[in-house]
Amino acid sequence: MRSEFDFIALVRQQTLKRRAEGTTAGLIQGIGDDCAVTRSPGADRDSVITADLLVEDVDFRRTSTTPRLLGHRALAISLSDIAAMGARPRWALLSIGVPQDVWNGRFLDEFYKGFYALADEHKVILIGGDVSRTPDRIVIDSIVLGEAARGRAVFRSGARPGDHIFVTGTLGGAAEGLRLLEAGARLKRSGAQSLRPDANQQLMLRHLRPTPRVEWGQLLGEKRLATAMIDLSDGLSSDLTHLCRESGVGAHIEASRIPVDPLLDRVRVRPPDSLSLALNGGEDYELLFTVRPRERLARLPEEVGGVPATYIGDVTNRAGEVALTVGTRTRALQPAGFQHFERMRRKRFPERA
Amino acid sequence: MRSEFDFIALVRQQTLKRRAEGTTAGLIQGIGDDCAVTRSPGADRDSVITADLLVEDVDFRRTSTTPRLLGHRALAISLSDIAAMGARPRWALLSIGVPQDVWNGRFLDEFYKGFYALADEHKVILIGGDVSRTPDRIVIDSIVLGEAARGRAVFRSGARPGDHIFVTGTLGGAAEGLRLLEAGARLKRSGAQSLRPDANQQLMLRHLRPTPRVEWGQLLGEKRLATAMIDLSDGLSSDLTHLCRESGVGAHIEASRIPVDPLLDRVRVRPPDSLSLALNGGEDYELLFTVRPRERLARLPEEVGGVPATYIGDVTNRAGEVALTVGTRTRALQPAGFQHFERMRRKRFPERA
Repeated sequence: MRSEFDFIALVRQQTLKRRAEGTTAGLIQGIGDDCAVTRSPGADRDSVITADLLVEDVDFRRTSTTPRLLGHRALAISLSDIAAMGARPRWALLSIGVPQDVWNGRFLDEFYKGFYALADEHKVILIGGDVSRTPDRIVIDSIVLGEAARGRAVFRSGARPGDHIFVTGTLGGAAEGLRLLEAGARLKRSGAQSLRPDANQQLMLRHLRPTPRVEWGQLLGEKRLATAMIDLSDGLSSDLTHLCRESGVGAHIEASRIPVDPLLDRVRVRPPDSLSLALNGGEDYELLFTVRPRERLARLPEEVGGVPATYIGDVTNRAGEVALTVGTRTRALQPAGFQHFERMRRKRFPERA
Repeated sequence: MRSEFDFIALVRQQTLKRRAEGTTAGLIQGIGDDCAVTRSPGADRDSVITADLLVEDVDFRRTSTTPRLLGHRALAISLSDIAAMGARPRWALLSIGVPQDVWNGRFLDEFYKGFYALADEHKVILIGGDVSRTPDRIVIDSIVLGEAARGRAVFRSGARPGDHIFVTGTLGGAAEGLRLLEAGARLKRSGAQSLRPDANQQLMLRHLRPTPRVEWGQLLGEKRLATAMIDLSDGLSSDLTHLCRESGVGAHIEASRIPVDPLLDRVRVRPPDSLSLALNGGEDYELLFTVRPRERLARLPEEVGGVPATYIGDVTNRAGEVALTVGTRTRALQPAGFQHFERMRRKRFPERA
């Protein structure tokens, strides 16, 4: 059984073939990173672009979110990809297919409100897309274009042995939020919510309303602070493995340093379960990045807009090996994100079936 | 009941608001044309981008096409949008969602073969996208980026009274092909097909395997021959109305000049039915464009790559009025594309319901 990664490998191969034929002038990065990157003759800035497909009953359920939150989330996950390139988001396109009853109702108005609220926050303009009918389920393709100063985009492939590994924000909350939703928990009405949401409510919002680290990403790119970067969509164990594979390096991280979402403790999810969620949960949409020691590290801010970045370990020269130290024991960390959560997060195709 | 055009109007309004706020620097054309157009500081070329959503059982049926033809068509309709801007296609992204059984089979391999064959023909490189599971139906979002020399993109809004109206190729064949497919006709196996396809087979291929007018579009843009342009996706009556509305002009076309697909006569579809298909059928993916008389007209080639362009009438100063002369009678031509074919082409939402 093939995985989505086999497909990415196939497309990469075909791009390499065309590169050899000389038809890829202007292509800086094709498939295989958070965004593709292109360069136009004369331009001061490189262009980055990403597309993210959200399918009803795979990526979300109409009964466990609101149209407004869905509009936010569709844009947020693409903004996160732009941030992971160290780029600034500029333009969005939205292809959306809805069944007739959804078209007739208030869904789209609310969806666009959520979308525009986040777009305005980052001065992103909706410039195109498509709208279509579907037989029964909602489908959304969120496309965002951004720009980085020429040569400043940050790839997954730039990490070198000795670099320090950082992660923004906290991890594991979105996965627990999804678990709560799949178990039947629901958001309270917005009135009650806004006053003092309890931990369960906040965890569900971690999943339903992720905050892309747009300012962090842009700063890391513009100031050339990060050597490599990826956003945490599949989960730390998977995404760190991707980064290491692309960079041809290994990594060693320490469990005690991983910034586990403090909300987990409040709902009594504790080690080792909380650590497992932080390592394998996915969809936190935080940024994982590497920094060259010494002068670069000295310039790294402790936080940006109130969001901290935490040192969790180092890049090693043991290519492909990701090691995790828990207490006094060090073991290999397997990329377990979408496999472990296959029953919950059915977006991805399993590597084996 | 709102239409998709109400939505486009809403998004345009919101862009205008943001333009007034000064956050749209670099945006040349937002929603409302075949592509959005952006300009990056210093760049010699403007960027154009389009996205087209194809939903199973709305835009295609698995039983009446082949995966390879579908791969071709997904790219073709986006290339047609790029051509309609007078631009050159460069990069593609493909977001594709498929159910598990499709993932397990040969569908995607064949789909990509069709996609790559057309991409290679136009030196377009696949640089990104997304792949996801869906519960039961295939969904495809085809995104293509192109480039035009700075200021050379052709919009729907540039037609002026006195301009001549042209259309490439022939019209009405795709709609008849779709009618045949919906009535149960099927393509013969490729072996038999390639020898000497009969008229029915060719008509079905007009729908299933449209040929985007990439060379025509690029030439019209680069040589500044067209004042306005749109591709014929909804149908001549609708798309000419769009072009007139955007340009603030009217049009007068003559039925006898419209290049009705000669295959229609071979399957005994004759006037007035053949004319109706040519006017309202849609999905021919030919280019409709306007040319300033005199010097520009003199430079217009009769054909490009064997595909002719036919003069069908003139732009008038009667804003919003599209007139059609049939024999000695002249009447107002209503935009009837997706309404007339609502039962067959359920992609669009009706303007009234």
